[in-house]
Amino acid sequence: MTQQEQPAADAAERAQDHVDNGRLQAAIAALAAYGGRDDGGVSRETLTPIDLAARRHLIGQARALGCEVGIDDCANLFFRRPGSDDLPPVLTGSHADTQPVGGKLDGAYGVLAGLEVIAALNDAGIRTRRPIEVVAWTNEEGSRFGPGAMGSSAFVDPSRLPAYRDAVDADGVRFGDALDAALSDSADLPRVPMARPLSACVELHIEQGPVLERAGVPLGVVNGIQSVRWYRVTCGGTMAHAGTTPMNERADAMHAAIDLAQRLYAFAAAHAASELRLTLGRWLVAPNSVNTIPGTVEFTVDVRCVDESLLDRFEAMLGGAIAQALPRCTIAYDCFFRREPTRFPGDMLSLIEKACARASARAGRGAPMALTSGAFHDAMYVAEHCPTAMIFVPSRGGISHNAAEHTEPHDLLLGAQALAYTVTALANR
Amino acid sequence: MTQQEQPAADAAERAQDHVDNGRLQAAIAALAAYGGRDDGGVSRETLTPIDLAARRHLIGQARALGCEVGIDDCANLFFRRPGSDDLPPVLTGSHADTQPVGGKLDGAYGVLAGLEVIAALNDAGIRTRRPIEVVAWTNEEGSRFGPGAMGSSAFVDPSRLPAYRDAVDADGVRFGDALDAALSDSADLPRVPMARPLSACVELHIEQGPVLERAGVPLGVVNGIQSVRWYRVTCGGTMAHAGTTPMNERADAMHAAIDLAQRLYAFAAAHAASELRLTLGRWLVAPNSVNTIPGTVEFTVDVRCVDESLLDRFEAMLGGAIAQALPRCTIAYDCFFRREPTRFPGDMLSLIEKACARASARAGRGAPMALTSGAFHDAMYVAEHCPTAMIFVPSRGGISHNAAEHTEPHDLLLGAQALAYTVTALANR
Repeated sequence: MTQQEQPAADAAERAQDHVDNGRLQAAIAALAAYGGRDDGGVSRETLTPIDLAARRHLIGQARALGCEVGIDDCANLFFRRPGSDDLPPVLTGSHADTQPVGGKLDGAYGVLAGLEVIAALNDAGIRTRRPIEVVAWTNEEGSRFGPGAMGSSAFVDPSRLPAYRDAVDADGVRFGDALDAALSDSADLPRVPMARPLSACVELHIEQGPVLERAGVPLGVVNGIQSVRWYRVTCGGTMAHAGTTPMNERADAMHAAIDLAQRLYAFAAAHAASELRLTLGRWLVAPNSVNTIPGTVEFTVDVRCVDESLLDRFEAMLGGAIAQALPRCTIAYDCFFRREPTRFPGDMLSLIEKACARASARAGRGAPMALTSGAFHDAMYVAEHCPTAMIFVPSRGGISHNAAEHTEPHDLLLGAQALAYTVTALANR
Repeated sequence: MTQQEQPAADAAERAQDHVDNGRLQAAIAALAAYGGRDDGGVSRETLTPIDLAARRHLIGQARALGCEVGIDDCANLFFRRPGSDDLPPVLTGSHADTQPVGGKLDGAYGVLAGLEVIAALNDAGIRTRRPIEVVAWTNEEGSRFGPGAMGSSAFVDPSRLPAYRDAVDADGVRFGDALDAALSDSADLPRVPMARPLSACVELHIEQGPVLERAGVPLGVVNGIQSVRWYRVTCGGTMAHAGTTPMNERADAMHAAIDLAQRLYAFAAAHAASELRLTLGRWLVAPNSVNTIPGTVEFTVDVRCVDESLLDRFEAMLGGAIAQALPRCTIAYDCFFRREPTRFPGDMLSLIEKACARASARAGRGAPMALTSGAFHDAMYVAEHCPTAMIFVPSRGGISHNAAEHTEPHDLLLGAQALAYTVTALANR
């Protein structure tokens, strides 16, 4: 143990012990009022008036904690607690936007827990070596403007921003115009550079899946994010009358699609041990009429796995399906999104494991477990830029993107405690 | 051979021989101008302004042939050529409305060939014993207001009309209001009673399927209309995140739907010899998003067969599927339309066979063939009311409900000749 590590660990423990659950719960309730719904959900899509109001609320909260507030060209908000040395900061936080109907926690929890860490450091009278910044990334959800995680991906690679500015929402509004309006709404804030150096990043998030709850474990050390590919499969046939066309003369695009889809499900079942996840989520059928044989069926394939080579085999099978289309039908596909797996660095995972274990043990709860994120997060892009990792807390029933999203308050406390320890230790390195 | 039959057959032959193909083709082209499209198709949905204009055109054509024009409470138009005796009339005709994009022939051909029969009788100086009426039924297509064949089904059973009046089109227009506007547009026409006695009915139509073309036969004696059932199948699961939800914890409504759909196709394949026809035409997926496991999948089943007992077995299998739904998923179904097979009477078929055989032989073409209609037609409902049958001519490539719909003019002539013979013989009975 070196001289430096003793006070660092000490400060991390004290920060963890100063996290205040009442203050954290109140902060969650206060932010949820922006876009809050009668059913307990939150509707706060990115850069809408309600999102801009929520951002102003967060700026006020951060200033009350003594933070400097900055904004970058993608309207990502940074709340900075200075360190003793002028070094690249440690980043934490998440996003404050929601799905059209989301819960109180997806994203918001990570931002508010980051501010709670700053409050705890203030209460404990700790000055860290490095600055600590809490970020609220712009447009993580991607529901209003696609793709998701625009803010974090533009931050780490600003050359992505011009294309994002051309994204259009369902009302024809350009992301670039909504962004400029948000920036002029925050014209008083200093503009901070994108892609600037960061020392490390840790993101706290709800799991959005059932693994932690099923295991009865309150904290998850996220070792990475699984690989994903999105395909668009188009089955072509000939539109014809359902009553007059004999079966052996049909070119039924739906029959071709069903035939292929069940082969895809069979592949997933055969590779259950590898945790391949397959979703055929979006379907477009033309002409979509009761008594007309479908002429075209298009469906999307979302396939994910920690094993990239298995996705290669999946794609090879999909390619082979073109040759096996039903008589008189055609099958074509294209991959419109792909992302290789993200693996978080081992030293980050060791630190987080230690932070989680201490918080859990003090609460009389079990040891944290390692898991891979099935969902994307801003941390996936930040990992391109600096050492990054994530902490998960359980989601009741694995439900999110839904008003019913819920995590028990005592688990939210443990997550914030684990974050406080991790961020403080990183900021004293 | 009785005294009556000799002149009847003689008149039928003379009527057949006076059918004028140039006049028929010109009439088809003139009506196709109402809603005509650059691609050769016709857009003339029921009771639209263009359909009302087409109806006024038909009224003018019928009056020019000396017909009396009447209208009933469902705006069905009747063009009447009086007979020598005051007896229930022989009815022919079809419908003048089209699908959103249809061809020149579906329905229109039957109406215009009916008027051509009257023109031929005029030219031949034949007076029939019974009146002959040519009908243009309202809303056969059912594309603007469901269900189809409203006009003929309301005529034979007027108690059906009040419910039809509540049908609403995509713009929120009630069928009842569109109907009242059409009736006031024709306020000068005498109102004729619905469900009044008819002596017999024969409808000439394009096949809308490939059977006659494939057989190289120009005329089909339609012996009936196959049975049909329409089901709505609802597969229920749980909407969840595509990335975070393990396969063995999913309730994937699409997986349940695919699993069931392929069992339905397998049933159809196993009963190919019975000519069971199966179409899964309309699909509704919720939330229909790339990265969300479908929570609900609803699809329609259109199943037809000449063998009603096989449809009973199909339905039993569908009922059994509820118990075989994938784990955590549900399957429910309801039958929202069913129609038992229609069998046209043998004496009508004998007469039509004779009429077709004579027309075909004189053109140096092959004998007519018997076939069952895969599609619905107004004749299906009229058959509830009086002896009814149909004559088919080939459809190129089996295509209809499409701008590419086509029948060779020499085949259209043969159909009109067969109709003239049949109608004249029936009107002299």
